[in-house]
Amino acid sequence: MTSTTITRIASLVTNDPALGAGPLGEIPDAAVVIEDDRVVWAGPAGSAPEADHQVDAGGRALVPGYVDSHSHLVFGGDRTQEFNARMSGRPYSAGGIRTTVAATRAATDEELAANLERHLQEALRQGTTTMETKSGYGLTVADEARALRIAAAHTDEVTYLGAHVVPGETDPADYVALVTGEMLDACAPHARWVDVFCEEGAFDGDQARAILTAGLAKGLQARVHANQLTEGPGVQLAVELGAASADHCSRLTDADVAALADGTTVATLLPGAEFSTRQPWPDARRLLDAGVTVALSTDCNPGSSYTSSMAFCLALAVREMGMTPDEALWAATAGGAAALRRSDVGRIAPGVRADLLLLDAPSHVHLAYRPGVPLTHAVWRAGARVH
Amino acid sequence: MTSTTITRIASLVTNDPALGAGPLGEIPDAAVVIEDDRVVWAGPAGSAPEADHQVDAGGRALVPGYVDSHSHLVFGGDRTQEFNARMSGRPYSAGGIRTTVAATRAATDEELAANLERHLQEALRQGTTTMETKSGYGLTVADEARALRIAAAHTDEVTYLGAHVVPGETDPADYVALVTGEMLDACAPHARWVDVFCEEGAFDGDQARAILTAGLAKGLQARVHANQLTEGPGVQLAVELGAASADHCSRLTDADVAALADGTTVATLLPGAEFSTRQPWPDARRLLDAGVTVALSTDCNPGSSYTSSMAFCLALAVREMGMTPDEALWAATAGGAAALRRSDVGRIAPGVRADLLLLDAPSHVHLAYRPGVPLTHAVWRAGARVH
Repeated sequence: MTSTTITRIASLVTNDPALGAGPLGEIPDAAVVIEDDRVVWAGPAGSAPEADHQVDAGGRALVPGYVDSHSHLVFGGDRTQEFNARMSGRPYSAGGIRTTVAATRAATDEELAANLERHLQEALRQGTTTMETKSGYGLTVADEARALRIAAAHTDEVTYLGAHVVPGETDPADYVALVTGEMLDACAPHARWVDVFCEEGAFDGDQARAILTAGLAKGLQARVHANQLTEGPGVQLAVELGAASADHCSRLTDADVAALADGTTVATLLPGAEFSTRQPWPDARRLLDAGVTVALSTDCNPGSSYTSSMAFCLALAVREMGMTPDEALWAATAGGAAALRRSDVGRIAPGVRADLLLLDAPSHVHLAYRPGVPLTHAVWRAGARVH
Repeated sequence: MTSTTITRIASLVTNDPALGAGPLGEIPDAAVVIEDDRVVWAGPAGSAPEADHQVDAGGRALVPGYVDSHSHLVFGGDRTQEFNARMSGRPYSAGGIRTTVAATRAATDEELAANLERHLQEALRQGTTTMETKSGYGLTVADEARALRIAAAHTDEVTYLGAHVVPGETDPADYVALVTGEMLDACAPHARWVDVFCEEGAFDGDQARAILTAGLAKGLQARVHANQLTEGPGVQLAVELGAASADHCSRLTDADVAALADGTTVATLLPGAEFSTRQPWPDARRLLDAGVTVALSTDCNPGSSYTSSMAFCLALAVREMGMTPDEALWAATAGGAAALRRSDVGRIAPGVRADLLLLDAPSHVHLAYRPGVPLTHAVWRAGARVH
């Protein structure tokens, strides 16, 4: 066992109101002690216990590592030309998700693993210490199981999204039967979560219910792509089935907001998608004012949101979605942890995993105040300095 | 003399239509040869001449270093609390520019120089190889001259902005007399440019004309803060006086656009300011369609736009201002050079300064496609690898 004290923290965000001020549990002039992979102490610098080693934070702010609860990183190819055409107002026969499905099926296991690891490392260097990722670009039993096997070798939070879209020339009913049958059997051993894209053109409410129910019966937990492009049944279905998170939530009725407020499902907002597709922003303020728990995530994927930057999403949430800088940081850390039903990450408190982000700034407010600027000074994951 | 070939460039942006395709002068599968501080050759990889050393670009895109033609980096303090209050909807008795003036006057020379250098280095690490900066937080003869002396020790492009705002309890006419008289005499030796904030609450058209005319007579060249918050005389005055650039251009009449199209003045757009103050975006498309030369810049300053990220501004320009990814990159490189009347930067062609940005991406389109993600793999300034 070896212990390290991080000293001279100008501002510490614990996300534990018992440890400091406000919902962020902020402590000025603070120290944190880590031992092996855990935080063992957090508090005012003057009271810090002795440790084997010292790290000087140099008057910077220390915050929990980001918890990015929604990404799609098992993919081949990219969609640069499609993006360029969309943003340049040029026609382009976009294949959408199917373009990536073709490239993913054509890639070798090694190529998919290397691409996934490259993106996870890119996110880690920016302070993302927990990252969920999904299948959904395979859409056959073998390709979905392969994607999840590869994902599980690289991250703890793995989601089965066979129900991303109905593959071309397949009857929807037949595909739902596959996703809830043979594909689920092949995929469930590699995943923690089951997910479905509940949207016009993808899966309707009845299909989504069948898919989620089958996953739950197989021991997976539920999360839902809900109400991204149109109002629909996704959010209320997620709440009814006790899903951990309803993701997107960009088009909500009052009944959707009320259901979220009364339930245990987190609303995960993904502003990178609205940024990259020029869609209207989700209204975080409306959700927060109703008492809904809100998370922020990147939705990192090559089609609709190819950012791995949680700081960028946080800045957008403040500029465009009515969140305060405090609320946005909470949503990107503790909110993400809630959306993954994790209590060991997203906070800096005794007993939690030592996932820490030291900012090149004296305050976490700089994440919104200094948009686009790389502010990552150091990152620890499970107590190990990784950047 | 030592020469280096950069090989395996997947996509080279030269900004020289004689060297490659389109306005960006793009060359796929390219090489660049630099010798001492200059580019000596750029073209298809197969034709590259021999050189002493080789650098493998690894299939990445190489673009000119950014030319950031508008920043305010000689300052003390920061305005975190003011930003936080504004974005959290809390009342705050903001002192605006005057808050920074007080902190700047109170800082030592060493503190101002260290703060400036820290921000220049932060920008350089992100690929900004030319950066203009200004006075304007001193507002006394001694404090303005001090700011410019410090700026000139750290960057080539220095702008005298004594006419940033009228300091408290000073008669505006008296202050204009000072700015065009004793202060100008003290400042002109340290600066290349004279600038004025022509805006309601700052300096009107007649005052701006007097200030610019005095600076021109003293051998400085003109640039103007014009039409940021309201329509006004700034843009047409800039064109009439042959200013290199009219900066902001957020509120333009048809006559303003026509004047810019007929003149030699560049329209420099600063979307970081609109992002951080929730103001309406400038309409780059309208300017480009009228034939106006457009530059993009950060406006980096602690009050209204505390970003040093040209990539962030470029992504905003694509999302919000109607620029294509190609146009935005041109504006952030060649456009900035035009706004500073520089022909030795903003391009990659024989004879220009070897200011190069190697992206962690196969195409410059990724700067907009992957918003917020740090994509700087390597930076050369005047032939020296600096990141």
